[in-house]
Amino acid sequence: MRAAIMHAAGDVRIENVPDATIVEPTDAVVRITRACICGSDLWPYRGMERSEQGQSMGHEALGVVENVGSDVRTLKPGNTVIMPFACSDGTCAFCREGLYTACVHVAFFGNAGMNGAQAEAIRIPNADGTLFAIEQQVEDDLMPSVLTLSDVMGTGHHAALVAKVGPGKDVAVVGDGAVGLCGVIAAKRLGAERIIILGRHPDRIALAREFGATDVVSERGPEAIERVRELTGGHGAHGVLECVGNADAMATAIEITRPGGAVGRVGVPQDEAMPASQSAFYRNVTIGGGPAPVRAFIDELLPDILEGRIQPGRVFDRVVDLDGVPDGYREMNDRESIKVMIRP
Amino acid sequence: MRAAIMHAAGDVRIENVPDATIVEPTDAVVRITRACICGSDLWPYRGMERSEQGQSMGHEALGVVENVGSDVRTLKPGNTVIMPFACSDGTCAFCREGLYTACVHVAFFGNAGMNGAQAEAIRIPNADGTLFAIEQQVEDDLMPSVLTLSDVMGTGHHAALVAKVGPGKDVAVVGDGAVGLCGVIAAKRLGAERIIILGRHPDRIALAREFGATDVVSERGPEAIERVRELTGGHGAHGVLECVGNADAMATAIEITRPGGAVGRVGVPQDEAMPASQSAFYRNVTIGGGPAPVRAFIDELLPDILEGRIQPGRVFDRVVDLDGVPDGYREMNDRESIKVMIRP
Repeated sequence: MRAAIMHAAGDVRIENVPDATIVEPTDAVVRITRACICGSDLWPYRGMERSEQGQSMGHEALGVVENVGSDVRTLKPGNTVIMPFACSDGTCAFCREGLYTACVHVAFFGNAGMNGAQAEAIRIPNADGTLFAIEQQVEDDLMPSVLTLSDVMGTGHHAALVAKVGPGKDVAVVGDGAVGLCGVIAAKRLGAERIIILGRHPDRIALAREFGATDVVSERGPEAIERVRELTGGHGAHGVLECVGNADAMATAIEITRPGGAVGRVGVPQDEAMPASQSAFYRNVTIGGGPAPVRAFIDELLPDILEGRIQPGRVFDRVVDLDGVPDGYREMNDRESIKVMIRP
Repeated sequence: MRAAIMHAAGDVRIENVPDATIVEPTDAVVRITRACICGSDLWPYRGMERSEQGQSMGHEALGVVENVGSDVRTLKPGNTVIMPFACSDGTCAFCREGLYTACVHVAFFGNAGMNGAQAEAIRIPNADGTLFAIEQQVEDDLMPSVLTLSDVMGTGHHAALVAKVGPGKDVAVVGDGAVGLCGVIAAKRLGAERIIILGRHPDRIALAREFGATDVVSERGPEAIERVRELTGGHGAHGVLECVGNADAMATAIEITRPGGAVGRVGVPQDEAMPASQSAFYRNVTIGGGPAPVRAFIDELLPDILEGRIQPGRVFDRVVDLDGVPDGYREMNDRESIKVMIRP
């Protein structure tokens, strides 16, 4: 079968790889109908060292179950499934608490004998625990939004929950990428009163406003901090969604949080040290977040998509087939596209 | 009047200073009956640059109101009062939320025309909002415990709340100083099932066990992390109280927290960068805490002291008069004393 393999920064190729097959009796094989490129895929796209073997890419997908192992109980061939970006057994203490990304059997696509989702098909370990089978008949035009439940919409929702977004709150979203935009949707959905997006790309900002952002701060660094404080009575936002991951964004997120408020961070941190630790301390700012347990949020978010209340699929502004994947990476990296959907 | 003035690392002197007087109509003057030396006072004791003028020290006290300004409504001369370590107006948005340490008029003793509490008397700005008047007649032997409500017991309680300590939880306390010991009391009081203290001083550990610690980890660094994980089913503690403030302690606190768990930090951070940011992120560990709004906790904690359910005053293992303060600093710094009480 064909799959996207990254060999070095800037070097993504579509190659023939061994077919995805059942290895463990708890596996399923899923034929990918829709996948996408994640903002986090851009970190290796910018910095990966050359590798002959390469890295199989992609961790967000919708698909149809093609085959299941002998121990799979809840799925059968033909099921339409959402594939969360992390595999989980569904039974351990962490899964029972809803923190699927801390599952004791957690596994990530592209590692340990699994290819990535930017491919024709994929092997899913612990299929019963990992996959979410969609019972309803879903219109094709809603599928891009459903696809976002595999990562980006669930990730924005996680950031908003950790940032304790709720009715009447002032919220700021750092980053206008697809996760930030989904963070705006999540904040609006949870009842935030004011939603300030920090970003500077006109197309993304326009979409953020349609999703519910009330204010835009295009400045960076100290000016951005000053501007958010002005917009929030001098004190900062109750909740801040950090959707970038670098040190500048994190420092800004902390500084624009109101004393006693919370930062929900979902941008993958690029540094081992967190900035502004003392500033967070002296203002009792809480910092949480991490890989979103998106599997836990599908039950809650899917009805809002199916009934048209939220449209996170609008973050996809480009659709490619597998051959178009290398170009999709380039476009996302050059900010020509917000998020690229792949139809293998 | 006489007060403790720090002139440089290791150089604390008792000097004659101007009497504390009413400056603003919202002030009170309090005659100090009990004060103490805080672990945070040891940071300048180790590192302060020489200053001719010096720094007036101390921010924890019990006392008796001697005089009030014309706008003070709730206090009168003769009231016995608890002096929280930060002054707050009691009326701003943050005070109304209970985050007194973020009061828009917050002020700290020893600054801005206020002397510290290691003195015969002290001027209290915003006295109505700051001071807590004790209505009850209190036995003298309970007074050391009541004194801890001005900082150290409230601070341990804050750490435990931020670490989301509750019934059935595994809790770890990093640091066996007075704050850590009060953290053990707070964790026990909030229903923690297992309370692991990380420390190595036999007298402190013995007291921690009396306060409710179930396990002691005397190792440091990777060995300590390994040991706490062993004690907690391999995963770490649900809640961790960080009561030291240096980078090693913070890194340990993060690493011994269970995925999805929380660190409540009250040790004053000595570094602008926080370690283990990626480790916290990948395990969805939340980090919060800061200067404790101890004023908010007195209503809840005082009855437990007056009715003998908790005895935080046992952290005081040395009592001095004002002349004994320089020696008290030395003893605490040399770990000869856990916490020194001052009776001016």
